[in-house]
Amino acid sequence: METTLTPHLLNELAAIVGLNYIFTDEPTRKDYGHDETEDYNFPPSVVLKPGTTQEVSDILKFANANKIPVVAIGGQTGLSGGALSIYGGIGLSMERFNKIEIDEKNLQGIVEPAVITQIFREAAAAKGLFYPPDPSSQGSCTIGGNVAENAGGARALKYGVTKDYVLNLEVVLANGEIIWTGANTLKNSTGYNLTQLMVGSEGTLGVITKIVMKLLPANSHNILMLVPFFKAGEACEAVAQIFRAGIVPSALEFMERDAIDWTLRFVDGVSLDIKEAVEAHLLIEVDGNYPDMLFAEAEKIMGVLEQFEIDEILFADTEDQKNALWKMRRAVGEAVKSNSVYKEEDTVVPRYELPVLLAGIKAAGKKYGFHSVCYGHAGDGNLHVNIIKGDMTDENWNTEVPKGIREIFELTVSLKGTLSGEHGIGYVQKNYMDIAFNETQLQLMKSIKNVFDPNNILNPGKILPDNLV
Amino acid sequence: METTLTPHLLNELAAIVGLNYIFTDEPTRKDYGHDETEDYNFPPSVVLKPGTTQEVSDILKFANANKIPVVAIGGQTGLSGGALSIYGGIGLSMERFNKIEIDEKNLQGIVEPAVITQIFREAAAAKGLFYPPDPSSQGSCTIGGNVAENAGGARALKYGVTKDYVLNLEVVLANGEIIWTGANTLKNSTGYNLTQLMVGSEGTLGVITKIVMKLLPANSHNILMLVPFFKAGEACEAVAQIFRAGIVPSALEFMERDAIDWTLRFVDGVSLDIKEAVEAHLLIEVDGNYPDMLFAEAEKIMGVLEQFEIDEILFADTEDQKNALWKMRRAVGEAVKSNSVYKEEDTVVPRYELPVLLAGIKAAGKKYGFHSVCYGHAGDGNLHVNIIKGDMTDENWNTEVPKGIREIFELTVSLKGTLSGEHGIGYVQKNYMDIAFNETQLQLMKSIKNVFDPNNILNPGKILPDNLV
Repeated sequence: METTLTPHLLNELAAIVGLNYIFTDEPTRKDYGHDETEDYNFPPSVVLKPGTTQEVSDILKFANANKIPVVAIGGQTGLSGGALSIYGGIGLSMERFNKIEIDEKNLQGIVEPAVITQIFREAAAAKGLFYPPDPSSQGSCTIGGNVAENAGGARALKYGVTKDYVLNLEVVLANGEIIWTGANTLKNSTGYNLTQLMVGSEGTLGVITKIVMKLLPANSHNILMLVPFFKAGEACEAVAQIFRAGIVPSALEFMERDAIDWTLRFVDGVSLDIKEAVEAHLLIEVDGNYPDMLFAEAEKIMGVLEQFEIDEILFADTEDQKNALWKMRRAVGEAVKSNSVYKEEDTVVPRYELPVLLAGIKAAGKKYGFHSVCYGHAGDGNLHVNIIKGDMTDENWNTEVPKGIREIFELTVSLKGTLSGEHGIGYVQKNYMDIAFNETQLQLMKSIKNVFDPNNILNPGKILPDNLV
Repeated sequence: METTLTPHLLNELAAIVGLNYIFTDEPTRKDYGHDETEDYNFPPSVVLKPGTTQEVSDILKFANANKIPVVAIGGQTGLSGGALSIYGGIGLSMERFNKIEIDEKNLQGIVEPAVITQIFREAAAAKGLFYPPDPSSQGSCTIGGNVAENAGGARALKYGVTKDYVLNLEVVLANGEIIWTGANTLKNSTGYNLTQLMVGSEGTLGVITKIVMKLLPANSHNILMLVPFFKAGEACEAVAQIFRAGIVPSALEFMERDAIDWTLRFVDGVSLDIKEAVEAHLLIEVDGNYPDMLFAEAEKIMGVLEQFEIDEILFADTEDQKNALWKMRRAVGEAVKSNSVYKEEDTVVPRYELPVLLAGIKAAGKKYGFHSVCYGHAGDGNLHVNIIKGDMTDENWNTEVPKGIREIFELTVSLKGTLSGEHGIGYVQKNYMDIAFNETQLQLMKSIKNVFDPNNILNPGKILPDNLV
């Protein structure tokens, strides 16, 4: 299905977006050929930068008629290869869709897909409002990509993920028709939930051009603490215990020793004195409007932690200290990746099963000869597994590691978890989908895809396994 | 598409469920022929009461092969006619699916569809956990019905609706295949969201046989206050103001004067002394674990209310007083209905637009000659409109009222709201769907229906308009 675009086709596309917004030079194509997934680069045949929904519609109508693949491209921070143009075709960079409107009266944000998540969060905060989803890449990822992959982040355990904030979407369908998926309301029992079908569909069902987000009143206070554990398994156990004590923290992050060590070497301005025997840390935050309440919650948490072997808890006293700890946590992914070629999995299980998952990951590593660095949103049961190539041979990397990944995924599913908590399936996980879903479920998904995109032009070769007939 | 079941077909069905669980007598059929929607009764041709998922599967396989309609029946409290067997066929009463399992370790409930919502809430509470959705019919509606209609309730403004708690569903498809829709995890970016597609699909895409629900740690305290407003429009205005002051109440209910008067006559053990000039009330609750924090929130709310013309606020001092106020609020629907033949609409708009909606409803009543009583979950922008027949002529009731309803729905949609917030579309609203959705959107929904149920056996004649080709 490799795509060749004739000069005639390119002229038609240029007529839609204008000559300033069509690119066929190799550097630009390569620039839009990657996201943050391993070291892949699949350049689109042409990069288009439409400026209006109508232009997106015209492009899709044209692509559909000519059966040209179209891959919507956002912040290029994806970790599952969702934005890779694996069959070439049109790379549809949405970067000109960058407007934000904050509707203070209804506590809603109407936001275009290319808005950087952090910019949107700050725009809400400037009006005393709060958009909770905060993927670690929030400084460079886009809201459109967040919706496409159903991104999460550190605050999801208390506030939910992207899907929990999306009220309504303007979407261009494969045939160029423009629809809204729902209404701008907090509740909606009016027909099938097209909004939630679109969220997390990774650009395979339509191109999102506008998003109506729910916002919350902002919280004024929080307490942040870093807890060193002498046993990594106990850090995982503590996670479920905190919830069982009746507390819902606003963040509960797990980091293995390697993750924190590598990160401290990677980022500037953060230093920590960690005892040799410490195996893992939990970063715990509670938030709200009443400091007394937060102190009481923090005390309850310390009561829970007493039963585990921990070192002294570090409380972040100032905003600067809090920012430094969050900067460190957010940099873990990049730090780990800067060390070596790697593969990252985004396993998720019911919270209480975390210790079992961690033990299973380490066992798989032993069996197949790889080292892994684990960290992530433990409060959600969401553990990022970074498998490090280090000095493994290419042969082992290509044959043994996939077996290990398969076993890890089989374990997550046996624990009633699944393959991806917040990164999506995209390109790199699609051939593991048979572990989470049987033929019936996969065929349902394929039939839904077929309803929205009968010519398979929208981000082809993603989510569904290659061998699905 | 009226269904006749031959003795041969009935024998086959009896062989699946056993002779004790198949009913063809008229009283039983009539018993299962209604829900709480107006005075409709559409008896199924046969009532089956399967006991296992496998039996449901065998029934659907058989029904699909023989093109017999199947309507899943829960607590029969629906308000949109979702459980009416309008084409006869099999009335699939799920009443034997009534097990509850509370997974304290993961804060989840695994619950079968016939469990009464209140029983489930109490089972969670007994373990210190909280299942927030609380439709007014919680004492008799079922969790399965709640999922099918995406039910809401008074706590939705802070805690969300049913869909926000459903993690995973066991579903029997039209062809008898049994699937799980997702995983038992708080986050999931693994393929299309079949779970959320099923929630709110009103039994038209599959039969739900098991539900995995997210639970929260229980809150220990709340404050409940009843606020009389001299102007109904100001009560609506106050709703958005409270949120803009940074408060998220756990309930914010609106009741017009008639609603409260009729209810006080209807329920025992609740009495209130209301001034003649009071036009409406807000019932406001805040909840949490820290009484001081709740007092502070209540004070903030009183600060907001000062700007409106209100009478003295009633604070419920004891659990008994709280229960009495909630009993009254929950009885409004029944009280209004006991007065007269009625039609109930479930309009929903962005919160700030409530005053405009209320004024529009009253204007439509004036224009088309009907009286309406409005109440509902104002914090969500969800207003239940009860149109009272009273002494209207049948002719006006049948010709003028539908015109008025159409205008009210057109208004909700123009305000970026929609037809139903929590009752579903079912039978009685389906021919207004063209107001909320255009042909493209409706055809997408129809195609999705077709993927799941190509023979249209599952709850046929619901959600989608009759004239959709």
